[in-house]
Amino acid sequence: MPILNKDMQVCISLAARPSNIGTRFHNFLYDELGLNYAYKAFTTTDLPGAVTGIRALGIRGCSVSMPFKEAVIPLVDVVEPSAEAIRSVNTVVNDDGVLTASNTDYEAVASLLDTHGVDRASRVVLRGSGGMAKAVTAAFRGAGFERLTVVARNTEAGPALAEQYGFDWVASEQQAPDADVLVNVTPIGMQGDEQDVLAFEQDRIDTATTVFDVVAFPSETPLVRAGRAAGKQVVTGAEVIALQAARQFERYTGVALTDDQVRRASAFSREG
Amino acid sequence: MPILNKDMQVCISLAARPSNIGTRFHNFLYDELGLNYAYKAFTTTDLPGAVTGIRALGIRGCSVSMPFKEAVIPLVDVVEPSAEAIRSVNTVVNDDGVLTASNTDYEAVASLLDTHGVDRASRVVLRGSGGMAKAVTAAFRGAGFERLTVVARNTEAGPALAEQYGFDWVASEQQAPDADVLVNVTPIGMQGDEQDVLAFEQDRIDTATTVFDVVAFPSETPLVRAGRAAGKQVVTGAEVIALQAARQFERYTGVALTDDQVRRASAFSREG
Repeated sequence: MPILNKDMQVCISLAARPSNIGTRFHNFLYDELGLNYAYKAFTTTDLPGAVTGIRALGIRGCSVSMPFKEAVIPLVDVVEPSAEAIRSVNTVVNDDGVLTASNTDYEAVASLLDTHGVDRASRVVLRGSGGMAKAVTAAFRGAGFERLTVVARNTEAGPALAEQYGFDWVASEQQAPDADVLVNVTPIGMQGDEQDVLAFEQDRIDTATTVFDVVAFPSETPLVRAGRAAGKQVVTGAEVIALQAARQFERYTGVALTDDQVRRASAFSREG
Repeated sequence: MPILNKDMQVCISLAARPSNIGTRFHNFLYDELGLNYAYKAFTTTDLPGAVTGIRALGIRGCSVSMPFKEAVIPLVDVVEPSAEAIRSVNTVVNDDGVLTASNTDYEAVASLLDTHGVDRASRVVLRGSGGMAKAVTAAFRGAGFERLTVVARNTEAGPALAEQYGFDWVASEQQAPDADVLVNVTPIGMQGDEQDVLAFEQDRIDTATTVFDVVAFPSETPLVRAGRAAGKQVVTGAEVIALQAARQFERYTGVALTDDQVRRASAFSREG
């Protein structure tokens, strides 16, 4: 790190429980690219006050995590379609006092569906009904997918999510139709209690063409491993998190990252 | 510098025209002492918003410069005597949401009068009538000095300052009485237009016992050099700025600095 100096642009994040990932990802690249920026994670119990502070201190950008993703909307000046589509913000950019909100998770998923060439005519089954499930479901809809079934035990959030984007809902995997694309947006496979659990049945994986696991820690989940073993196209949560961070980075600094820079910064961010 | 991380305590400064001095002084010592702190200078056009941000983001401390030193008073929770005596704040500490304001310039001057053993019975002549002149004049009064003459061309600020602390005012050095202690709190001798100007007449220096120049850049002003050449006791602006910064540092971190640490951090802060 260069010594901090008065002319640095400062970016921050706001989360109930901050992690070190963003702080390490962004600072690693500021250092490597010689950008006079600094990034630091914060928490707050006063979101409006924090946003007032972002304006008053001229903080360049703010990454927004739970539980502030929707609450920040009335506090900004411009809400881009990526955030409006899901009423959820993860990125705020401050251009001389004008705060613009977007959602780079949504953008990253949409971009990955495109770059992986996932066929829009595919039948999709998606597990989950939380905030990230909303971003992913909306991105499928925005990308032109028309056949998607939300699988969620939550009998309020599940049907609400499906209905919002014109899709179907079922309460269990057993009730779901056959699918070409399997998407996991639950904690199944995530570090912790469910890390050894496969998010979909093996025979469902065998008959699919594409497996997409949004879980990023670890990125090699049981579902990802099973998808690779079965020779399927695989999209990982590590790709989502890296791409969304790269998009944030470009919005804050104007610098478009190379794949190699994103890969190395992501690796570094996971070490801390 | 260590890589920034989410657990760092953050201290900032607020000034209309930020310098790099505080940022370099504090970060140099955070690094040397292995403290998980970061310090960054900011400016603002919305002081109440900035203070709201300090509270909402849990920023540990804030150094306050012109033009915010008085305006910040109604925005804090506790005003210590050092700031109350001169209605001027240069340091705000945030203890779990309780903001306490103090003035370490005042404290530093009071401390230097003590450590240099300046006799309270001395006749003092002080040039200047700005914010720092107020801090110095009040520190002389607080330390028990009773004979002080303010020399100031400003016919409003000069007499007002003298009257506030029960001292005399004259408009020019020629009108000032003989003095044991000569104090310069004007820009005379400072880097710029007046850097080659001696703040007091040579024969006045010859008959004094102590010369105190609050100008810190450069610290070896014509007055300081003349005082040294004439074998007088000399107190420099570099001492004031280093001591006030050390007191800020202790308030922010709880760590009392050694003289050597202060000296090296000050030297480093002047390089940038």
